Amino acid sequence: MSPGALPGFRDFYPTELAERSYIFGGWRDVARRYGFVEYDGPPLEPLDLYTKKSGAEIVDQLYNFTDKGGREIALRPEMTPTFARMVAARANAMRKPVRWFSLPQLFRYERAQRGRLREHFQLNMDIVGEADVSADAELLAAAIDVMRVFGLTSEDVVARVSDRRLLNALLAGIGVTSEQLPAAYAALDKLDRDPREVLEQRLAAAGLSVQTAAQLFELAGATADEAAFSQLVDAAGATAEWETLRSYLDHLESLGVRDWVRVDLSIVRGLAYYTGIVFELFDAKGELRAICGGGRYDTLLESLGGVSLPALGFGMGDVVLGELLRVRGKMPASEPAVDVWVAYGDSGTVEDAMRVAAKVRARGRSVEYALGSQKLARQLKAAYAAGAKQTLVIATPELSANEAMVRRKDEKVELRVQLDEWIAGA
Amino acid sequence: MSPGALPGFRDFYPTELAERSYIFGGWRDVARRYGFVEYDGPPLEPLDLYTKKSGAEIVDQLYNFTDKGGREIALRPEMTPTFARMVAARANAMRKPVRWFSLPQLFRYERAQRGRLREHFQLNMDIVGEADVSADAELLAAAIDVMRVFGLTSEDVVARVSDRRLLNALLAGIGVTSEQLPAAYAALDKLDRDPREVLEQRLAAAGLSVQTAAQLFELAGATADEAAFSQLVDAAGATAEWETLRSYLDHLESLGVRDWVRVDLSIVRGLAYYTGIVFELFDAKGELRAICGGGRYDTLLESLGGVSLPALGFGMGDVVLGELLRVRGKMPASEPAVDVWVAYGDSGTVEDAMRVAAKVRARGRSVEYALGSQKLARQLKAAYAAGAKQTLVIATPELSANEAMVRRKDEKVELRVQLDEWIAGA
Repeated sequence: MSPGALPGFRDFYPTELAERSYIFGGWRDVARRYGFVEYDGPPLEPLDLYTKKSGAEIVDQLYNFTDKGGREIALRPEMTPTFARMVAARANAMRKPVRWFSLPQLFRYERAQRGRLREHFQLNMDIVGEADVSADAELLAAAIDVMRVFGLTSEDVVARVSDRRLLNALLAGIGVTSEQLPAAYAALDKLDRDPREVLEQRLAAAGLSVQTAAQLFELAGATADEAAFSQLVDAAGATAEWETLRSYLDHLESLGVRDWVRVDLSIVRGLAYYTGIVFELFDAKGELRAICGGGRYDTLLESLGGVSLPALGFGMGDVVLGELLRVRGKMPASEPAVDVWVAYGDSGTVEDAMRVAAKVRARGRSVEYALGSQKLARQLKAAYAAGAKQTLVIATPELSANEAMVRRKDEKVELRVQLDEWIAGA
Repeated sequence: MSPGALPGFRDFYPTELAERSYIFGGWRDVARRYGFVEYDGPPLEPLDLYTKKSGAEIVDQLYNFTDKGGREIALRPEMTPTFARMVAARANAMRKPVRWFSLPQLFRYERAQRGRLREHFQLNMDIVGEADVSADAELLAAAIDVMRVFGLTSEDVVARVSDRRLLNALLAGIGVTSEQLPAAYAALDKLDRDPREVLEQRLAAAGLSVQTAAQLFELAGATADEAAFSQLVDAAGATAEWETLRSYLDHLESLGVRDWVRVDLSIVRGLAYYTGIVFELFDAKGELRAICGGGRYDTLLESLGGVSLPALGFGMGDVVLGELLRVRGKMPASEPAVDVWVAYGDSGTVEDAMRVAAKVRARGRSVEYALGSQKLARQLKAAYAAGAKQTLVIATPELSANEAMVRRKDEKVELRVQLDEWIAGA
């Protein structure tokens, strides 16, 4: 954040922009490898696009306002409603499964505190039109390959996965009614943060017996021991649901990412619309917020007034990922230095530098030269300050018209070259 | 524009996003070759950042609102105020001249009519800290090289240039007072659009004599004939100003873009803050709005409360440029097809396809395969529908575990290959 910018908004100076571009580059690279194509929508949408999905409460968190035409508007807080709107408009004409990704900037009106941002960028990858669990595996593999492309390993990042269908069956097995499900989910979600007694009180308030609450906590931890977990599954009659999750894990093995993945039924995901497998990516040390979250939302597209198609997707923000890369030393230093600096001596003018610069630029190299009219010594100082990778000196008394001296950065040796030849090889 | 999107906002489906990416790619390529580094700022800024520069009238055209914290906010209508704010905050630490570019999305609350957009993207390139006219030439050369990188020529696009200092001197020479300058500028600006009589009436209303008005019109057209123009310059005592413009043209010659450039004193540019050379790029047939406009604004940074540094820049929108490229057949067809489709036969399962897909993706290729469990014939249909560049068939009864059949798109021949070797070369 910078002086003069609104609270919660970032200025991207060239150094920060280079980091952002590095993240965007990795995102696009992996999305492309998985056959996803990029789309984008407007950063502003009608407010009801969000209230339809998340209820009127969401407005508290939105950057919303009334525009000059009297329309209720919001800066997009997430991409899924725009995605759903766009897919619905052309669903029939599209090859299924749809594999789309986007890199939207998203906005929330958070209370401005301690560097809490009101905007971030997010990689969104979504698959529409495939109900099979292989699509879930494909999607998580892509999220994990994003970690890989940035040099992170399964030592750095853990993917925790759950399945709402399995969890619901297990909860039913221990006697949780469908009315009590929200309280059970809320308790699971807070397992790492709130004291056990507080959670028990809340569960009791929702009508769960002490025994059921105890079984709930046991269930959340049981996935570590597969034999014990199988017993729970058998007892709940949730074999089919467990088979789906097992098949998911097998697929992740085939896709080469199984060692990143841990089953964890306490992964709830705040959003109410998930219907199947859900997942989150965390830094293994547990120091940062979630890197990425997503899952299957088979009923959402229809409920948003669109098409009835199974769908799944995830969002991955630039802020936590960027923090993680910096903490792990995986964010490359930006190097905005020009490829070539053209300097001229007493036998020439800036026009000579311009002619050479134009030719070298036409070869695709980045080139600077001293604007205005400067002495050679000053030009060379400027080249040094710019960190130029190569400095080309032309038009000194010792050089013929088609000659130049070239020096590479950090090298002492100067080479005398034929100018035309050197440019042709630049 | 799409059903459900706000009026004036575009949805970018993959085809349109591919065109946008093509334009962004060309913009970034040229900016980089000229040694410019990318930056970005927030899409929202305090309203007074714009009213400070352009007066309270600007608010009519802005997408502005009051936020939940009671702040007056606007979606950025242009990048220069953000740029000025950011440069001012770090001006002392920066190497001069600063060469920065950005690709912001900009917003205006235009009356929504006939596909009139309320947002567009714009390449902004600015140089700060160089008063010499060589910087002006460098900047225009970059704008013209953007045209070149998209395959346009000086047959397609014309750069019209003027210099406020020269124009002011010439206008003074024919007796236009500084109070009459705005009227004179307005008349020049409307020269192509409004009838001569209407312009004469307006000039008369501003106190210009019939004779002065006639000289004004003569002056605007006189640049075509250099000898006649020199006489005008001599008469007005504007030799120094003309020399600057001549030197600019010489620099453009050295930079290899002189044949795109025409001096045209009727180029006024709406914005009041230009102080020197101004320019616009037009399609040569005159069918579209300006492609690009910019110029020198040596006093703006200081007047925005920032640093006193000479500066110049231009903005080039994606909409007119995109139209021009499409009209001239220079917009490449997007080709989102995957590199490789992996299909499996009766001896295998989707797990086999997944293992191969993971390996080929690790080689940087884009890969799809049929999710779920599908018969080979159906998988091959899907590969065809996806336009896959190569289709790899594994796990048929005729093939050993390390063999595959490969077929390239649009070719009849299938090749039997060693799978590992093929992947290693993919």
